[in-house]
Amino acid sequence: MTYKFSDKVANLKPSAIREIFKSMSDPAMISFAAGNPSPESFPVEDLARLSADIFRTASTQALQYSITEGYPALRKITAERVKAKFNIGRAVSAGDKYTDDTIIVSGGQQGIELAAKVLCNEGDAVICENPTFIGGLNAFRSLGARTVGVPLLSDGPDTDALEETIKKTPNAKLLYLIPTFHNPTGITASLEKRIKIYEIAKKYGIIIFEDNPYGELRFSGEEIPTIKSLDTEGLVIYCSSFSKILSAGMRVGYITAPEEIVQKMVVAKQSEDVHTNIFFQMLCHRFMTECDLDGHVEKIRGIYRRKCALMINGLEENLPAAVSFTRPEGGLFIWVTLPRGSDMLEFVKCAVSKKVAVVPGTTFNCDTTAPSYSVRLNYSTPSDEQIITGCRRLGETAKEFLGS
Amino acid sequence: MTYKFSDKVANLKPSAIREIFKSMSDPAMISFAAGNPSPESFPVEDLARLSADIFRTASTQALQYSITEGYPALRKITAERVKAKFNIGRAVSAGDKYTDDTIIVSGGQQGIELAAKVLCNEGDAVICENPTFIGGLNAFRSLGARTVGVPLLSDGPDTDALEETIKKTPNAKLLYLIPTFHNPTGITASLEKRIKIYEIAKKYGIIIFEDNPYGELRFSGEEIPTIKSLDTEGLVIYCSSFSKILSAGMRVGYITAPEEIVQKMVVAKQSEDVHTNIFFQMLCHRFMTECDLDGHVEKIRGIYRRKCALMINGLEENLPAAVSFTRPEGGLFIWVTLPRGSDMLEFVKCAVSKKVAVVPGTTFNCDTTAPSYSVRLNYSTPSDEQIITGCRRLGETAKEFLGS
Repeated sequence: MTYKFSDKVANLKPSAIREIFKSMSDPAMISFAAGNPSPESFPVEDLARLSADIFRTASTQALQYSITEGYPALRKITAERVKAKFNIGRAVSAGDKYTDDTIIVSGGQQGIELAAKVLCNEGDAVICENPTFIGGLNAFRSLGARTVGVPLLSDGPDTDALEETIKKTPNAKLLYLIPTFHNPTGITASLEKRIKIYEIAKKYGIIIFEDNPYGELRFSGEEIPTIKSLDTEGLVIYCSSFSKILSAGMRVGYITAPEEIVQKMVVAKQSEDVHTNIFFQMLCHRFMTECDLDGHVEKIRGIYRRKCALMINGLEENLPAAVSFTRPEGGLFIWVTLPRGSDMLEFVKCAVSKKVAVVPGTTFNCDTTAPSYSVRLNYSTPSDEQIITGCRRLGETAKEFLGS
Repeated sequence: MTYKFSDKVANLKPSAIREIFKSMSDPAMISFAAGNPSPESFPVEDLARLSADIFRTASTQALQYSITEGYPALRKITAERVKAKFNIGRAVSAGDKYTDDTIIVSGGQQGIELAAKVLCNEGDAVICENPTFIGGLNAFRSLGARTVGVPLLSDGPDTDALEETIKKTPNAKLLYLIPTFHNPTGITASLEKRIKIYEIAKKYGIIIFEDNPYGELRFSGEEIPTIKSLDTEGLVIYCSSFSKILSAGMRVGYITAPEEIVQKMVVAKQSEDVHTNIFFQMLCHRFMTECDLDGHVEKIRGIYRRKCALMINGLEENLPAAVSFTRPEGGLFIWVTLPRGSDMLEFVKCAVSKKVAVVPGTTFNCDTTAPSYSVRLNYSTPSDEQIITGCRRLGETAKEFLGS
């Protein structure tokens, strides 16, 4: 039997990273390739205690079908949290009503996919920072949308290029951005850039999707306002999740967006999974009301501050001068760039032969045929010892590769 | 700000049933409108005990990102179960390899949506029994596919009409069927019909999606082979879930399909939610290995056998002779049909005024403008007492409505 698949998935490839993740069975391999939170970041004892209590006191609700919008108490406390932390959403004085701007999704990934589904027809374009999150790119592609890249500079997207790209791209419906601790580069867009981007979006009437999965993970530097906090016109869909601060495996995220967009996303979500696992929605809510989430996040920041410094130190000590890298103020990733023209596929193979896994930059390109001279490193998943040894191996790889 | 939504979602409405579910706050209202499993069907104590053990012994795995295909041990035991119960999938002697035909999804709903996503372009057609499951219809619509109905007779779809419909429908890519304890009608297709349907699908090279969420819930009559068990050519995607036998709120389902289709669905799922809640995947597996799932299902069958008989008894006692209804041998639903020409919207309103909620048949029509003279009743969710009282109220409604 020969199967004929839809145009939108016919050429879709599994994420290179998840494929690497699947084949990471060699115990000697050190992986800088994941995007996983540190296992130390899971508050296991509190979650176990609260779970037992949910089974004891609310089992029917926690195991039965629920509403698509999400567990009402979680929507409310999430709306309150993003308002308090990032000045997002309507004033609290508007009462419960402002939770209408919030929908619980099955991880940030579903938020991205739903936004594209409700806004893009097949053939429409999504403009992205280049490089960008592979999960975003594949969500857009899986819906038949085109992905168009705008170069990312050290302080955020090139806004001149952004405006030019919008002008010359027919049917550009969505501007997908990770302004804070960007994946894969670790770059954070400046406030000036954010204001400029918002003005451009307003001028051309294009919806911004602000993906902020790492926003609470700042371990140095000053907070910069989210683009959503600047949103006077209802142009911004804000997305984040509990994956990096409570548990990634539970798949609980959220969207804050204009109510009209949220309503369409609810209808689309109903057709995708009816609702997000309700037990874990209740568990998130219980953790947020009964435990110290802020204190817990502070602990995670401490872990990543240490691990990031350790990796930067290892890279400084081991990489040849021709190799540069970013110095993130939060998040999970460092972006390492080799001299222009380097054959990165060869570099990654060479690194794997030295038992250190990294993700080739091409993975994150909007245009899959464009070159990349970079690799993405992750410091949240490996142990401290693995970071030190892995940086040494990466240094050896680079020196051999560059013949220096 | 005026938002422009994609063509595929612009006219999509929230499911009428879920809207009814949301507004069921009147404590005097008896609802026959849900499709929820009975709360008695949740094995709370076993799940609580196994959950505590997962937190104790495997917390990192249960809270961390996982692979898209699903928890390997759950895929394996699920493949074994569908092989044992329904003769589906490769021979067990093929070893672990046959789990490649199985993917874990976030409830059967995601299975439906993913199948349509990988097989249908916008504008392609999905042929369905008419009426059919609203969640299926909305999934197809949310991807821009057209839904084309084939009349459902008392022993399954009208196969002559099915062949005619396939012949005259351009780009028919998928045949969506619920052959066993059909939602909304409770009808089970005969073996003769199943064989005929498979032959037609083979003749025209169309993929069958066999949705079987209620398959294990037979409480009378003889088992009939699934269409998938007849599948010599790799034409059938089989979908079921743990929603009706363990917990609906956890959102864990599965697909068994030709490996090539499964692989495409995995790539599409990666862009939707990365993977299904891993904690509950592990919990399902633990329950299946350490508890008596067969015994538990037998208990649920007993509950539904009693509740269905109680409702049929109530309908026989209270409904006027002009009203007919189906007598299901399993599943959750009874289909009640009034004389042709009855204004069903008026009937449902009248029922609600008498404090009994039912779902109007139009909800389940492929063609939303077509009439329906039926309503769907559910007997799994209401208590025994509610079934008795609700049937009395429904009888009063029908007598007043028909003036008899």
